[in-house]
Amino acid sequence: MSFVYHRTVRFADTDAAGVVFFPNYLAICHEAYEESLAAAGIELQTFFHAQDLVAPVVKCQAEYLRPLTCGDKIRVTLTSAPLGTDGYAIDYEIRRLGDPAKLAARLRTEHLCIASASRRRCVAPPALAAWLKRHSQ
Amino acid sequence: MSFVYHRTVRFADTDAAGVVFFPNYLAICHEAYEESLAAAGIELQTFFHAQDLVAPVVKCQAEYLRPLTCGDKIRVTLTSAPLGTDGYAIDYEIRRLGDPAKLAARLRTEHLCIASASRRRCVAPPALAAWLKRHSQ
Amino acid sequence: MSFVYHRTVRFADTDAAGVVFFPNYLAICHEAYEESLAAAGIELQTFFHAQDLVAPVVKCQAEYLRPLTCGDKIRVTLTSAPLGTDGYAIDYEIRRLGDPAKLAARLRTEHLCIASASRRRCVAPPALAAWLKRHSQ
Amino acid sequence: MSFVYHRTVRFADTDAAGVVFFPNYLAICHEAYEESLAAAGIELQTFFHAQDLVAPVVKCQAEYLRPLTCGDKIRVTLTSAPLGTDGYAIDYEIRRLGDPAKLAARLRTEHLCIASASRRRCVAPPALAAWLKRHSQ
Repeated sequence: MSFVYHRTVRFADTDAAGVVFFPNYLAICHEAYEESLAAAGIELQTFFHAQDLVAPVVKCQAEYLRPLTCGDKIRVTLTSAPLGTDGYAIDYEIRRLGDPAKLAARLRTEHLCIASASRRRCVAPPALAAWLKRHSQ
Repeated sequence: MSFVYHRTVRFADTDAAGVVFFPNYLAICHEAYEESLAAAGIELQTFFHAQDLVAPVVKCQAEYLRPLTCGDKIRVTLTSAPLGTDGYAIDYEIRRLGDPAKLAARLRTEHLCIASASRRRCVAPPALAAWLKRHSQ
Repeated sequence: MSFVYHRTVRFADTDAAGVVFFPNYLAICHEAYEESLAAAGIELQTFFHAQDLVAPVVKCQAEYLRPLTCGDKIRVTLTSAPLGTDGYAIDYEIRRLGDPAKLAARLRTEHLCIASASRRRCVAPPALAAWLKRHSQ
Repeated sequence: MSFVYHRTVRFADTDAAGVVFFPNYLAICHEAYEESLAAAGIELQTFFHAQDLVAPVVKCQAEYLRPLTCGDKIRVTLTSAPLGTDGYAIDYEIRRLGDPAKLAARLRTEHLCIASASRRRCVAPPALAAWLKRHSQ
């Protein structure tokens, strides 16, 4: 089941070309990721402070289809997929709301699970595995 | 009447000290400003593209009382006040929600109204004047 | 001939995990792009304000190999390549200086040339074509 | 003796009004601060990871005099001053280079020294005290 995140495009997201600066789409997708983790009961402050696990982004990609401007209402749809035994991918679609909603960008991040103590790859811990299962296509 | 804006602190807001980077509080306050303008029927894309008017920030100040971390739920309260005949100030309070909500920061921005064509100071146009009156203390 | 850009990692680039936030690598690469354009005599203010041409990023990708932290000295290497008749790709390598320099990330952006007036794809104008030729592998 | 930091305005610094977004001036000043600390032999990674000391910004203010646009060459001048026995202020002036250089903004940050272990105010440790003395007016 996809996770859906709603957001308004902010002035701080934009650049001098008048539209959202392309790296900022990734930051917006990361917000959807944070929101989906919180919704699954994962405490963000702990998760991103890497007490037991770090799950860094090892790859990302983006395809930009339509520009977004300040004030645009957008919907980010997130779906996850396991990558081997110790990683996962997240696919995002950003749509600008309207009639009809229009696809503005497709993005993907790939993450690796690493145990903080040993610095070795590890399987996703139970809460993250549950999140992953919940949002798999 | 104050305008109230709710927000979650995002990972992108933070820095390597583990808390919100101090300039980002101003960007968060600007979001509250955008939301209040939109709520007053002012079209942001036009307003910030300076077709008739620009209302740049000419001064700002901030006082930081408590750090904020990723995942914190915050409430930003905005009140406005005229500054002379051609400017306005906005005062912001950021509180971290909880029991009780705690004041995290106080900020202020000062704006000047400038006519785009003449580059001269001007009075606030009607929609902005209505917004200003609505959120004055 | 590659273009080389030197940079120090800034506190503003980092996030609460203590390292550079992954979207910010793309912003750092864009700085190298700006610097290479300026070095080729292209006036940035005009170029990015899209008076005749816009050359938006239509795709990007990144591979993250090593984390970067505040104060790290980095070297960004930029090479370009034509994409069809109306676009170009830029490949970036980011190395952390040291003995030896270590590859921290590989990134790529793909751009399309669009005439501002007609909104149609076009060939790169002479100054951009010269820049493109200069930094092609 | 003032510390001088040179910088080019980047596309990532700008917003949809075509100029540097006002909170980003503070981030630019923080870069000058980082550079001055590094020049004084203070290791940034340790300093900002708060191993013994934290020196958070408790107040800041800015006055904006001229807009800055992508590609502008700027010079940031930093001077410091003690604030009581356990704090310090930093004053910044940002000038756009040209003939003559023009003052674009004046900013100030105020910092408090806090011992990480006890969470109590403390005097600046020797390296920071030396930095403070070096850049006092």
